[in-house]
Amino acid sequence: MTAKEDNMVKNLKVKPERLHHRLMELAKIGETPDGGVSRVAFTNEDIQGRNFIIALMKKTGLSVTIDEAANIIGTLKGQNPNLPPILFGSHIDSVPNGGKYDGPLGVIGAIECIEVLEENNITPNHPLQVVVFTNEEEGMTGSRGIVGEMDDVALNAVSQSGKTVREGIRALGGNPDKIKSAAKKKEDIKAYLELHIEQGGVLESKNLQIGIIEGIVGINWWDILIEGKANHAGTTPMDLRQDALLAAGHLAVEINRLVTGMPGTQVATVGNITARPGAYNVIAGSVCMTMDIRDISSQKIQSIFSQIRESSLEIAKKTGTRITFKEVENFLSVPTDPDIRRAISEAAGELGLTSLVMPSGAGHDAQKMANITKIGMIFIPSIGGISHSPKEFSRQDDIANGVNVLLHTILKIDAGALDR
Amino acid sequence: MTAKEDNMVKNLKVKPERLHHRLMELAKIGETPDGGVSRVAFTNEDIQGRNFIIALMKKTGLSVTIDEAANIIGTLKGQNPNLPPILFGSHIDSVPNGGKYDGPLGVIGAIECIEVLEENNITPNHPLQVVVFTNEEEGMTGSRGIVGEMDDVALNAVSQSGKTVREGIRALGGNPDKIKSAAKKKEDIKAYLELHIEQGGVLESKNLQIGIIEGIVGINWWDILIEGKANHAGTTPMDLRQDALLAAGHLAVEINRLVTGMPGTQVATVGNITARPGAYNVIAGSVCMTMDIRDISSQKIQSIFSQIRESSLEIAKKTGTRITFKEVENFLSVPTDPDIRRAISEAAGELGLTSLVMPSGAGHDAQKMANITKIGMIFIPSIGGISHSPKEFSRQDDIANGVNVLLHTILKIDAGALDR
Repeated sequence: MTAKEDNMVKNLKVKPERLHHRLMELAKIGETPDGGVSRVAFTNEDIQGRNFIIALMKKTGLSVTIDEAANIIGTLKGQNPNLPPILFGSHIDSVPNGGKYDGPLGVIGAIECIEVLEENNITPNHPLQVVVFTNEEEGMTGSRGIVGEMDDVALNAVSQSGKTVREGIRALGGNPDKIKSAAKKKEDIKAYLELHIEQGGVLESKNLQIGIIEGIVGINWWDILIEGKANHAGTTPMDLRQDALLAAGHLAVEINRLVTGMPGTQVATVGNITARPGAYNVIAGSVCMTMDIRDISSQKIQSIFSQIRESSLEIAKKTGTRITFKEVENFLSVPTDPDIRRAISEAAGELGLTSLVMPSGAGHDAQKMANITKIGMIFIPSIGGISHSPKEFSRQDDIANGVNVLLHTILKIDAGALDR
Repeated sequence: MTAKEDNMVKNLKVKPERLHHRLMELAKIGETPDGGVSRVAFTNEDIQGRNFIIALMKKTGLSVTIDEAANIIGTLKGQNPNLPPILFGSHIDSVPNGGKYDGPLGVIGAIECIEVLEENNITPNHPLQVVVFTNEEEGMTGSRGIVGEMDDVALNAVSQSGKTVREGIRALGGNPDKIKSAAKKKEDIKAYLELHIEQGGVLESKNLQIGIIEGIVGINWWDILIEGKANHAGTTPMDLRQDALLAAGHLAVEINRLVTGMPGTQVATVGNITARPGAYNVIAGSVCMTMDIRDISSQKIQSIFSQIRESSLEIAKKTGTRITFKEVENFLSVPTDPDIRRAISEAAGELGLTSLVMPSGAGHDAQKMANITKIGMIFIPSIGGISHSPKEFSRQDDIANGVNVLLHTILKIDAGALDR
């Protein structure tokens, strides 16, 4: 590459208007009266949305295939056909009455990167592949297929569309009977990149432009059972009570105090609570509540849980109750690749964008892809931190910034950023 | 009355064995496998229990009538037929799978008082009337009938027996179509006394024998709505949350702190709680919880509520939520008669029993009777404070103590304790 060419590449920029126009075109498919999008996987809207993307890929010069898991893969040949492809993309299925950006940003943005390279007659060394994963929202069907995780249990599950996943994959043009053939090996893919909206309010609240994802957080779910003694709310004096709901109140407050009192981005949530017998005039005999703890370090999650359990002993003693914890789920955290993080950080810096290294609190196809390749994720601000809602919104300039960072990260990886 | 007679009256004592035997006989009617009693008003068990009492009354020399509200009234003639009767009793209907003592103690105890007087050839000045009120547990049908409160709404309500209250009254031998004729006037009754188990653990925990009831507490019920913002439990950092369940925890703890931090016997209970949407991975957007505040002073209840509301403003501010209160019920407190309290206190003292002036945290027919006459209530210890349960239990000696206090309080009233 000559110095002139090198400079031209450094100055490559995506087209904000085109990105915006295509996102809004896609959002019309499954549009809801309140401005949201219902494009649930395996529905007619999903099929229409995929056809829109396939047409766009073809128009952009990508050769399109559908794999056995119904993932759409659009390929741009590289200069060296022996190199493994750099994969990037996201999904276009939505939750019921979701938003316009969760998923589509990563897909439309990926196609934009290809289009900018073609418009500037740049042929990368590696093949580039844009991927649209099947059914991200309800089970990451597509990425599980690519990493060889799909089995009969997953295929026979009934999805929100009413179809089983097996029927759904077939309806999208995949072949569920040969789902194992969708599986890739480690040497098949150079890296996987995903651009996504944050779905939280950190970047906006800190007034930063780019999130460099350090990993997808581990998620630890617990059922907490608090057992006291149901008794008459009128005849039982305050000092003779064993009030399970009072103990639950203390514990909810204590969980929050512990988690907010330490440095870091850990979160813990008591999202549901039930009291029995549950009446105005009866002291609660038992309370069930849920707990969700997340952090990028699975070890820290364990440490937080230990502290919560220790505090619960004091609360139980103070309130005359018994508090027990039952683990429901424990998804380990998935780190992103440090070299890809560095490439994203350099790309953002060269584009003059502010950035923050942060965890992804939500799950993404990238966490599945980590089983077979190096992964990286780029976030842009979600206004108001709102997602899975018609109110989901990201600004046009933030979108262009994110796609520019994606483009230049691809170019850095193509130029050997992971091979030093 | 001669000095000898006077001394004989002072030494009158009820018979503990007989009381115990009759309580256990009655408890066989509607007995449950776990040793409880199901004698729900208007059921066959209720009817059988009432027949047992009617037979016992007749055997004891009482003339028995059933009024329009199906209350059983057993009368012992007094020396002066122009004096209004002294009324005392309780109920024999139970909650489903309740205990042996809640209600029956006051009825069997009342009959025992009559029997002891007869055995000692003592004829009181006033007529004495033993009353068994209809359907105390599910709406105080009988006492409401006597004070003229029963209307079509109350009569048409469907009771736990499956019958409407109207049908139930008829099944017990009352006349619901003439229910208004059951109503008594102020001059019709000298006083109403009720002996009852405490249904709480105060007397037992303080090792005292007799509760002198200062009144039936006022009861104030509230629905509390806490509105925050439902959001993703993974992507929403702790400092950007508006967590309704966290606010609810703070408020439950604060209500307890306020109520236990002031002198007195006031109680407050958060008995039920619901979170929405109510999932492991979603911060609660709204929480509903109930609040029950009770005290013998309705003014103090108001003051407690004001303090809770004030604290809720701080909690709302701290958690970014909105907390609103909606009043559901407000039963005013009902004081007992000070002269009757003094008579009970003197009777207990003369019997060498320890006593405590205390509120009744639960409702009783006495609170209805207060509308037309002077009322007094006597409590005895409930072991473990347990009631409305097969585990409900009171000791034989405590039972005899309570009935002795009832007997001597009746005699003091008969001798003019309320006429000074």
